[in-house]
Amino acid sequence: MTATTSFTETFRDEILRSGLLVAGPVDGLYGRSKTYEEVASRLEVFATRLADGEIEDSFCYPPVLPRTVFEQTGYLSSFPDLMGSVHSFAGDDREHAELVDLAESGRPWARSLEPTEVMLCSASCHSVYPSLAGVLPEGGRSLQVSSWCFRHEPSRALTRMQAFRMIEYVYVGDASNATAFRDRWLDRGRDALVDMGLDVEVVTANDPFFGRGGRLLARSQREESLKFEIVTSFDENQPPVAIASSNLHQDHFGRTFGISTASGEVAQSTCFGWGVDRIVLALFHHHGTDPTQWPPDVRAKLWP
Amino acid sequence: MTATTSFTETFRDEILRSGLLVAGPVDGLYGRSKTYEEVASRLEVFATRLADGEIEDSFCYPPVLPRTVFEQTGYLSSFPDLMGSVHSFAGDDREHAELVDLAESGRPWARSLEPTEVMLCSASCHSVYPSLAGVLPEGGRSLQVSSWCFRHEPSRALTRMQAFRMIEYVYVGDASNATAFRDRWLDRGRDALVDMGLDVEVVTANDPFFGRGGRLLARSQREESLKFEIVTSFDENQPPVAIASSNLHQDHFGRTFGISTASGEVAQSTCFGWGVDRIVLALFHHHGTDPTQWPPDVRAKLWP
Repeated sequence: MTATTSFTETFRDEILRSGLLVAGPVDGLYGRSKTYEEVASRLEVFATRLADGEIEDSFCYPPVLPRTVFEQTGYLSSFPDLMGSVHSFAGDDREHAELVDLAESGRPWARSLEPTEVMLCSASCHSVYPSLAGVLPEGGRSLQVSSWCFRHEPSRALTRMQAFRMIEYVYVGDASNATAFRDRWLDRGRDALVDMGLDVEVVTANDPFFGRGGRLLARSQREESLKFEIVTSFDENQPPVAIASSNLHQDHFGRTFGISTASGEVAQSTCFGWGVDRIVLALFHHHGTDPTQWPPDVRAKLWP
Repeated sequence: MTATTSFTETFRDEILRSGLLVAGPVDGLYGRSKTYEEVASRLEVFATRLADGEIEDSFCYPPVLPRTVFEQTGYLSSFPDLMGSVHSFAGDDREHAELVDLAESGRPWARSLEPTEVMLCSASCHSVYPSLAGVLPEGGRSLQVSSWCFRHEPSRALTRMQAFRMIEYVYVGDASNATAFRDRWLDRGRDALVDMGLDVEVVTANDPFFGRGGRLLARSQREESLKFEIVTSFDENQPPVAIASSNLHQDHFGRTFGISTASGEVAQSTCFGWGVDRIVLALFHHHGTDPTQWPPDVRAKLWP
């Protein structure tokens, strides 16, 4: 385990020392430098251009979404430990004074807050399903959706941030189109990452479902080949890291959000997601911390 | 009040009907279309270019920040009703089953969650102060900081979102430099907004401090001219809306975060903030919902 720990720390040190990311007192939250952001925004432009002509429309969503929408996603049941529920203060002057007293004396103060009507966004695509409720046009719909996401899993590994960006291509429609969309974007996504000089592999995967029941869900997800990840190695002594992934949701979101196909069936859906911050980190890891020195063919992809 | 309500609703209808924003079940959260995002990102590029050569460095922060940092900002004392505290689930399988039962039977389920070590970001500049702790170089430091911000104030007015983007220029150093920085950026900010064809005015303002004590704080902030806003009118029957603002913090953040000047005094600070989403809305309001039809001189500023 020494090698594992030391690689995580070595890469962390290299990126923090270079100033690309700025760490603070909480693991998994980082300030991003101008250079880091330049690469992230070039990657966003790249992903948007790649989708051009194939994905009909594009939306950016805020980092929070309605609690009622979160409740419909099934996330509470599958990943309760990763969620972020937003609470605020709804009391009067006296209760406020008590709250401030607690905080100023270093005691826990947040337990008395009221849950608000919003949650932190766990996956970009969750925000878009409510707007698709109803009957889809013939052939279904395809959308690009981007947002900041939050997952409560503090870690010193830079590749496991609590707050990170995701760009997803979402398809809703019939089952065969959904599978074809998934297959096509896994191929195109892998090719694009290879074109950026990354050594990647497409692998069957499962989500980190919570608890004892979660193990069954994870196994069944693998057996049905519902989740694939595009992984890259940051270190030969450690498992590779997913930098993009695709899930087939079958009729999960179609059923919950009331989305049906033109022929009247419950819509199936799939998404292909770019892990923006992980891809940026992979690029810095593989090509060095100075993007002006990256190989010309890699630069040509991102700065065309 | 009829005119007021009806303008808010008219503008809301126009923007939603045009597809620039997509509303959902919670007031103040909107999906942003490709066109809306194109204007927002051009504005970000504009603000970054404007700062070039004057502001030393630039950072993008996540939409959440460490709870300990939030506690140091004074926000809990001044604006408790606007904060977003992030809570998650830390229980076992049995507690998880109870949580899911509550949610599935439509009862409140979030009260038993545990406060995490993070809060939603209330103002972009809050994230950067911890990284400035210590002794500043001669002349202080200037930084651009951007992030998504959250304020819990649900409203149907599009100009009052719960989740929105802010770009700030922050200065930390001595008092006279801080005041000069504030004055200079209020001027440059106003000129830039005028150049975009907006009819704006710089006015003395105050923050919406909470409760009875808050009224005193607001009055003293006005009397000391610590806050200015650049406002524009969306409707002659309503108060104008702040689309940029600047605060002098005196030694508030310097003291709390342990930042001192080269000569050993507690650092003073100031920030100038662009309300990205409000400026984008003002541009759509004043120039129409199709940016390709905006006046050539306005387009030249944003698409140089």
